[in-house]
Amino acid sequence: MGEMLGQLRRTHMAGHVNESLIGQEIIVTGWVSKRRNLGALIFCDVRDREGILQVVFREEAAKEAYEKADLLRTEYCILVRGVVERRESVNDSIPTGQVELIAKELKILSESETPPIYIKENLDASEHIRLKYRYLDLRRPDMQKIFKIRSKAYISIRNFMDQEGFLEVETPILNKSTPEGARDYLVPSRNYPGTFYALPQSPQIFKQLLMVSGFDKYFQIAKCFRDEDLRANRQPEFTQIDIEMSFVGVEDVIALNERLVQRVFKEVLDKEVVIPFERLTYKDAMERFGSDKPDLRFGMELKDLSDIVRDTEFVVFRNALDANGSVRAITLSGGASMGRKDIDRLGEFVKTYRAKGLAYIQLKEEGVKTALSKFLSEDEITSIIDRAEAKTGDLILIVADKDEVVFQSLGALRLDLAKKYGLLEGTEEFKFAWVTEFPLLERDEEAGRFVALHHPFTSPMEEDLHLLDTDPGKARAKAYDMVLNGEELGGGSIRIHDSKLQEKMFSLLGFTQEQAWARFGFLLEAFKYGPPPHGGLAFGMDRLVMFLAGTENIKDVIAFPKNQNAFDPMSEAPNVVDEVQLQELGIEISKISAQE
Amino acid sequence: MGEMLGQLRRTHMAGHVNESLIGQEIIVTGWVSKRRNLGALIFCDVRDREGILQVVFREEAAKEAYEKADLLRTEYCILVRGVVERRESVNDSIPTGQVELIAKELKILSESETPPIYIKENLDASEHIRLKYRYLDLRRPDMQKIFKIRSKAYISIRNFMDQEGFLEVETPILNKSTPEGARDYLVPSRNYPGTFYALPQSPQIFKQLLMVSGFDKYFQIAKCFRDEDLRANRQPEFTQIDIEMSFVGVEDVIALNERLVQRVFKEVLDKEVVIPFERLTYKDAMERFGSDKPDLRFGMELKDLSDIVRDTEFVVFRNALDANGSVRAITLSGGASMGRKDIDRLGEFVKTYRAKGLAYIQLKEEGVKTALSKFLSEDEITSIIDRAEAKTGDLILIVADKDEVVFQSLGALRLDLAKKYGLLEGTEEFKFAWVTEFPLLERDEEAGRFVALHHPFTSPMEEDLHLLDTDPGKARAKAYDMVLNGEELGGGSIRIHDSKLQEKMFSLLGFTQEQAWARFGFLLEAFKYGPPPHGGLAFGMDRLVMFLAGTENIKDVIAFPKNQNAFDPMSEAPNVVDEVQLQELGIEISKISAQE
Repeated sequence: MGEMLGQLRRTHMAGHVNESLIGQEIIVTGWVSKRRNLGALIFCDVRDREGILQVVFREEAAKEAYEKADLLRTEYCILVRGVVERRESVNDSIPTGQVELIAKELKILSESETPPIYIKENLDASEHIRLKYRYLDLRRPDMQKIFKIRSKAYISIRNFMDQEGFLEVETPILNKSTPEGARDYLVPSRNYPGTFYALPQSPQIFKQLLMVSGFDKYFQIAKCFRDEDLRANRQPEFTQIDIEMSFVGVEDVIALNERLVQRVFKEVLDKEVVIPFERLTYKDAMERFGSDKPDLRFGMELKDLSDIVRDTEFVVFRNALDANGSVRAITLSGGASMGRKDIDRLGEFVKTYRAKGLAYIQLKEEGVKTALSKFLSEDEITSIIDRAEAKTGDLILIVADKDEVVFQSLGALRLDLAKKYGLLEGTEEFKFAWVTEFPLLERDEEAGRFVALHHPFTSPMEEDLHLLDTDPGKARAKAYDMVLNGEELGGGSIRIHDSKLQEKMFSLLGFTQEQAWARFGFLLEAFKYGPPPHGGLAFGMDRLVMFLAGTENIKDVIAFPKNQNAFDPMSEAPNVVDEVQLQELGIEISKISAQE
Repeated sequence: MGEMLGQLRRTHMAGHVNESLIGQEIIVTGWVSKRRNLGALIFCDVRDREGILQVVFREEAAKEAYEKADLLRTEYCILVRGVVERRESVNDSIPTGQVELIAKELKILSESETPPIYIKENLDASEHIRLKYRYLDLRRPDMQKIFKIRSKAYISIRNFMDQEGFLEVETPILNKSTPEGARDYLVPSRNYPGTFYALPQSPQIFKQLLMVSGFDKYFQIAKCFRDEDLRANRQPEFTQIDIEMSFVGVEDVIALNERLVQRVFKEVLDKEVVIPFERLTYKDAMERFGSDKPDLRFGMELKDLSDIVRDTEFVVFRNALDANGSVRAITLSGGASMGRKDIDRLGEFVKTYRAKGLAYIQLKEEGVKTALSKFLSEDEITSIIDRAEAKTGDLILIVADKDEVVFQSLGALRLDLAKKYGLLEGTEEFKFAWVTEFPLLERDEEAGRFVALHHPFTSPMEEDLHLLDTDPGKARAKAYDMVLNGEELGGGSIRIHDSKLQEKMFSLLGFTQEQAWARFGFLLEAFKYGPPPHGGLAFGMDRLVMFLAGTENIKDVIAFPKNQNAFDPMSEAPNVVDEVQLQELGIEISKISAQE
């Protein structure tokens, strides 16, 4: 049985002990991270949340403590009272490395079996074992660091929003399930058997209602839920920084969020983020980077060659142009020496994005080398080289297809090459940008109708309002995404606050009035009573913390995440429940699944 | 259709406009709260989150704005550009009452139908209509004030916890359902049909795991869920300030939480809360106030008369004493003049707490009047009056029964009398106290076994450890409740961190090892690896805000609450979902409930 704490209390965090304490008697607590028995001396590293301190047990100085220290094993939880002394052999690799604690008294607060994972940085263990013993995984210093960053980010965000006059308001978790929406997590109701609550995919409607209520500026760090098949870096429950403001336009929301991000990076990482961020329209982003979340840390921009080859008879280019597509290129600096096999692999790569092939021009020392010379004139090839801003030693890569395919394939190829050829080395650490003027609608070819690119409450741009009647697919939205290093960090829009415009939008989306009211009736009803103009934004909190902590795994930034099957190996949730619980809820497990 | 905001932006909040702005041109936005048409002048009160400002439209000064103003109706959302002027007829009832805004330009941003409820303070409308049009109910200034208080409380709590070195960590909402627990909300799993997640009733196990992880100091403002029949002031989802600390004892947790509460009351209400709070053991609280959450704003303490009447033959007292019960009294100052009917009503009142009756002594000007004189000697009655600290004009009320019944009935009677007879008038506004040394276990007579008074992880007091083997019902726990004005604001305990002691506790609670592991296996497993001593506390956030806002209705402090049937009249959640959603989850609605 572990010893009791009694009246003894920690006076200092082990990781904070330094030369200013030399000669003082202190008490530290923590876990045994290493122990070496050198005869009359026992050395023991004690680890707490703040770091590691070397403790020395001397047989002749404190016999009882020394004898107990001999029982210590890794991960025992202990308390040590002792005197801080200067260390003979300084350890520069830890902040407390100038000193050590000479123990007078030791309490073994609890013992530990041999842990199933090592409590150390950069652990190389299977995800399953890390999640099963998550409480030990979280004891590792690199994980502790991440959750300190996450906690700092929360308070930084909240103080900023508070100072800007935003009220934090909690919206409900037990919500209405909306027919035809993405897949909700459902919660059976006991009071009304046969009915269900749904966990929120976002507080979107509630935050708009809070604007109707005149709250003026709202934010919340909110839990959201999506019952989707989990791709990498998706979790069934995730956290969103949710913001909404009244009486604002696009510029107001953008300016506020730039200052928010600047503050968080300064306070959490002491990094200076320059504002305003670079801005690109959706159109520019696609044409220059082949992506609506462009990574601006490096160039290698897409170049449109369509006008140069507009009269070509080369069938690949001809077909693309005739189908209203385009011919575009990117240039890999120094890529001319790439071998045939490697270039073929790039061709395979773009095919996964539905491109039919990859043409290329090698600008070798000995001259231009390209299969295209069979089809294109020397002038045309020279013009392509000019347009592609290629110089000797470079490789020009060309895709011809529908715009959508050209953008996707060259956009992905650009990122892939940047990683493979180290184009990101030495670039800015954090490169923010806004992408604006998104299309309002996109065509769902399968369903043969439009769907909202963001959501059905997104306002069209005023100058495009007339297009809703004539060519709705061309209308742009007052929507904006914040992009960081090629990832979408947040997105939002100015909302429609006019019920007539909202009805028109629903009809463009193919909803009957009944369907619209079934889904969003209470919002439409609210819009009858003087809704203010409003707009907002939502950030992925988990993704933000991933950037702040420098990890690419979302499970690293969530204390108790689920695995890819939405299962928690530690608690073994979800699990089977008592039949009586289901009876109370008026539900049964279907026979088919019961047999499984 | 509403007018567009265009380039015009609010420069000031309507409620903030004051004499310092006289002569300046400003822009305000908000809602029309009142409009009076006086011929060539139209007065309009504009309301925003911060208050109300009088706007004047003068026909001769701004004809276009004046004409538009004629169209205004209550709750239209507008923007006004104008010049601030000193007001002729000052309105001292509002902070902006010295000034008015002379309009130059008016934009009607959106129109409003006649709202189904008045947008005014102290609204007298049915709960149903308030919840159905919650977005309008929240537009009322008294509701806005509450959510400003709530938001202020969040940031105050969080900054305090941050400064004290606590990390905010989010724990999961999709949890494991624990058999035999209180009723969970369940969430069917799609990946593993036939299994369920449960929404957390509290993050208890996770916060203890975070201590095992060495996070040292954790807090979270966490959503919790209980699928219980809703009594007044209960909601299916509620918010908890959840705190846990390592290497601490009772005093450390108490001291921290006193400072937290002091800070919050200072920052939110500018009230000075004196610390340390008064302390009472559970035993004292019961004996003096008949309650484990005593209201200390007034006296009227319970007095034990048992020793005075120990030899009595009066059958009511005799039976109580022989059954190991007691005879106790409270004194209502100035109550001697109470009429027979009113006293009879008090007798009926205590019967609802299972007391068999209420004896009484009236200390009238003309002498002592009591039916007890038939059974008790003059000496005994004099001793009772002394013990009850009663003087002429007072009324002594006596219950004899099992202690449990005596405490409950006199405790309730004390509160009831205090309300009826204005004993709370002129008392301290906020009277905090700690109740400590709770019993570890209580006897569940029906089940014939002990249950944990707090929860099974609560540590016994060291001095009572031996009682676990001999007389467990007598053992006291390291548990403490924070009480404010007779309500439990928060509660917590030092936890067991020794697996052997934890196993003993489970066996006292009648769990087999298998049952204990089925419920809490992952916590027991975690305790094998050096758990630190730890303890914590949880506050009801909603209840705290009720105190800060001075409301007695929990629905006033939750933005979108459910009604007593856990139904939301606004969104109409819970509702029927698509059959295909249930198929994907592998569940069916039972035939019986489907017929309902």
